[in-house]
Amino acid sequence: MSSERLPSRSEHFSDWYNQLVLRAELADYSPVRGSMVIRPYGWALWENIQDGLDKRFKATGHVNAAFPLLIPLSFFEKEKDHIEGFSPELAIVTIAGGQELEEPLVVRPTSETIIGHMYAKWIKSYRDLPILINVWNSVVRWELRTKLFLRTTEFYWQEGHTAHATESEAEEETLQMLDIYEEFSVNEAAVPVIKGKKTEREKFAGAKDSYSIESMMGDLRALQSGTSHNLGQNFAKAFDIQYLDVGNTLQHCWTTSWGLSTRFLGGIIMVHGDDHGLILPPRLAPTQVVIVPIFRDAEQKSATFEAAEQIKLRLSNSRTLIDRREDLTPGYKFNDWEMRGVPLRIEIGPKDIAAGQAVLARRDLPGREGKQEIALDKLEDTVEDLLINIQESMYEKAVRFRDENTHYVETYDEFKEVLADQGGFIRSHWAGTSEDEAQIKEETKASIRCLPIDRPEGKGRCFFTGKETDQVALFAKAY
Amino acid sequence: MSSERLPSRSEHFSDWYNQLVLRAELADYSPVRGSMVIRPYGWALWENIQDGLDKRFKATGHVNAAFPLLIPLSFFEKEKDHIEGFSPELAIVTIAGGQELEEPLVVRPTSETIIGHMYAKWIKSYRDLPILINVWNSVVRWELRTKLFLRTTEFYWQEGHTAHATESEAEEETLQMLDIYEEFSVNEAAVPVIKGKKTEREKFAGAKDSYSIESMMGDLRALQSGTSHNLGQNFAKAFDIQYLDVGNTLQHCWTTSWGLSTRFLGGIIMVHGDDHGLILPPRLAPTQVVIVPIFRDAEQKSATFEAAEQIKLRLSNSRTLIDRREDLTPGYKFNDWEMRGVPLRIEIGPKDIAAGQAVLARRDLPGREGKQEIALDKLEDTVEDLLINIQESMYEKAVRFRDENTHYVETYDEFKEVLADQGGFIRSHWAGTSEDEAQIKEETKASIRCLPIDRPEGKGRCFFTGKETDQVALFAKAY
Repeated sequence: MSSERLPSRSEHFSDWYNQLVLRAELADYSPVRGSMVIRPYGWALWENIQDGLDKRFKATGHVNAAFPLLIPLSFFEKEKDHIEGFSPELAIVTIAGGQELEEPLVVRPTSETIIGHMYAKWIKSYRDLPILINVWNSVVRWELRTKLFLRTTEFYWQEGHTAHATESEAEEETLQMLDIYEEFSVNEAAVPVIKGKKTEREKFAGAKDSYSIESMMGDLRALQSGTSHNLGQNFAKAFDIQYLDVGNTLQHCWTTSWGLSTRFLGGIIMVHGDDHGLILPPRLAPTQVVIVPIFRDAEQKSATFEAAEQIKLRLSNSRTLIDRREDLTPGYKFNDWEMRGVPLRIEIGPKDIAAGQAVLARRDLPGREGKQEIALDKLEDTVEDLLINIQESMYEKAVRFRDENTHYVETYDEFKEVLADQGGFIRSHWAGTSEDEAQIKEETKASIRCLPIDRPEGKGRCFFTGKETDQVALFAKAY
Repeated sequence: MSSERLPSRSEHFSDWYNQLVLRAELADYSPVRGSMVIRPYGWALWENIQDGLDKRFKATGHVNAAFPLLIPLSFFEKEKDHIEGFSPELAIVTIAGGQELEEPLVVRPTSETIIGHMYAKWIKSYRDLPILINVWNSVVRWELRTKLFLRTTEFYWQEGHTAHATESEAEEETLQMLDIYEEFSVNEAAVPVIKGKKTEREKFAGAKDSYSIESMMGDLRALQSGTSHNLGQNFAKAFDIQYLDVGNTLQHCWTTSWGLSTRFLGGIIMVHGDDHGLILPPRLAPTQVVIVPIFRDAEQKSATFEAAEQIKLRLSNSRTLIDRREDLTPGYKFNDWEMRGVPLRIEIGPKDIAAGQAVLARRDLPGREGKQEIALDKLEDTVEDLLINIQESMYEKAVRFRDENTHYVETYDEFKEVLADQGGFIRSHWAGTSEDEAQIKEETKASIRCLPIDRPEGKGRCFFTGKETDQVALFAKAY
């Protein structure tokens, strides 16, 4: 990384983001337009996200599997809305093994079709249900305007696909997975979310109902960070996914799908980062604690490296790393680890060793406020407490920021004024139509991110139609 | 699974294999010719393989990352041997986002080219070296004759790609990874291997030297189960991967690549399976112990389920599962778990409960020999010991089988006779040329699997040329 400063987060959010991703070595541009390379540091973060989610999926009875990357084009044409939604984004293999293919193959943009085909083959009776499968893979959707992690032609994700005997079981599953995404986001990523239903306009191509979790980024825009779809019987009918029920009658299954992608990584960056770089929530950070020995000569080097080793041994409960680089100044190293968002830094120099202490610096509180001297024999407990404390205070800060920037409006004029003057989320009563929604998006660029499930607002009047309703909509400009 | 018997392993090995894979629900055919679906049970086995390898990679300083699936065709043309080797197997995207692409994109068959391109960008000086990156992904190679796990158009693997400052470091890395594959195969999969160098004819397209581990399958054919390539400076020169050395002179890097794929799963099946189905080595088995309650009525059901629960609690160190299915006979269940290769079965019925015991059945010793009654209070230790014992005796059996079917020959006539009468491995002194090797393959269908690194044979006379040599070759018919 270079020692230049990042662009200001408050003034040049987009440049700040792009440069942070490159300089923290999270990802890089690839020679294929719109696709990215995820570098080891970014991938280690994704592996921690994978671990956290995978445990939760398995604890709720899901198993992993793998389905083919290349899917016959005709499969997509079986579900009318699905092909309509995806057709402009498909990457298509037409030549293989030196010959033109009889039927073109689509590079998977999502796997409902191929999995539907296999489920039709595997499911015979109610005894085979539910099927609860998740897949970790990458998908390709041709995008014109791309941005690292947030919108790339290839991205990494998990896609869950389940089949059930009843409508209510499928709806339960859809909401269970939405809850898991919320709980994961809050407790592991320290990213607050609003859970809600997508409108008809914004739902997944082929779904009966779509749900999402939505978070507020540092520039006040919304990011859809995870989605869960109740597919009704749409795919079951398109792919003949049928089972014999207890009474020996043939029935169509009810299916769901749900996904969370490397986009989520972009969310973590944009919620928590600052002008010095990334700030990672301790629970997901590949390195939770970095120890920087501070030395001027060979003797000091050997003493501080030795002390650093001992500290690392004490901190065996945390993911700890020693910065052993020799040809860089301490200041450069501090900047480097700040750029990479390591939650806690421990500095240890000859004077600290003499005093039996070390200096701790919190990444989330840069400057004096986050620094303290700690006796070496108290280090273990202090570090453990601090990591928990950092995780919590990052979450609280993000909640505060979101709440301060969420507004309730009573008229469309007020809506436009708030959006122009302050931006952020507008969360208000809503009884409009799809056409009203389209008009608002056209006029203000804000769309309905979701219809929140939790509505402490109770009944009220729709700001657009004036109708009384207990439905609330969350509007925002979105990524 | 159906209750029919498998085809005989000794008489119809290939049918036995195909049906076992389907009936143990490891994998299934997909609607795209030559590509497979890996079902949850097969994928759980692959996840255990991934865990075992990933730990070993990380312990030796490697990190994971992700590189794009789609690679510009021109990248392949930069390394002459590489494009020559891969060109007949490529799947090519020509249309994306509704438009014909200016430059076709290849669905990755392996990632040397795209990773080489990125390394050229990332590596500036000797301080950036070595780079030790591994990737878990899938690759596509168009194959005409396919077989589940062993040869599919899409397969899953890990591909390691490293860059070094010196030739000797690259060679060390190449051999280190070969050793890791050997150690993993022996200790985790109970599959003995022969490590060796590939001949010029058989090496990887673009490599300086290729190495492999080779195992003997149940039908006496060889399976290449992992490969490690010293790429010399071939890719560094093709992609300008250069660094400034300590003396500030620009040098080309030395690179390596190494991979182990879902093919390895086919190897486990073909080494260990029997007429009843799969036999899994305990260390990799998704389920190590299955408990089957045996009951006739509701009262017995409740008592045996309760006892099974208690046994499962005791066996918290093992991956244990209770078979709670109600509408199947014990015999059916036994067959089912045998088909799936679970190493140890515990049967618990009302009489066992009364006697304070359970019946243990080893999968690797079907019938009476592998059955024993064990007092419940000794269960924990016994199961732990048995799992270790099964792992070891599976390995010993496989070594014995391989050694009994490995022959030394002194003349080409003897070579042909042994191959025709007995088959198996022929391991003999060898000083032939590539043309000699081609002739032997043409005439006998046996090829040189590798030139073994460990050669207790010492010096001897080449069976084909009569020349004295200390080089030994391992010949076999291969998958």
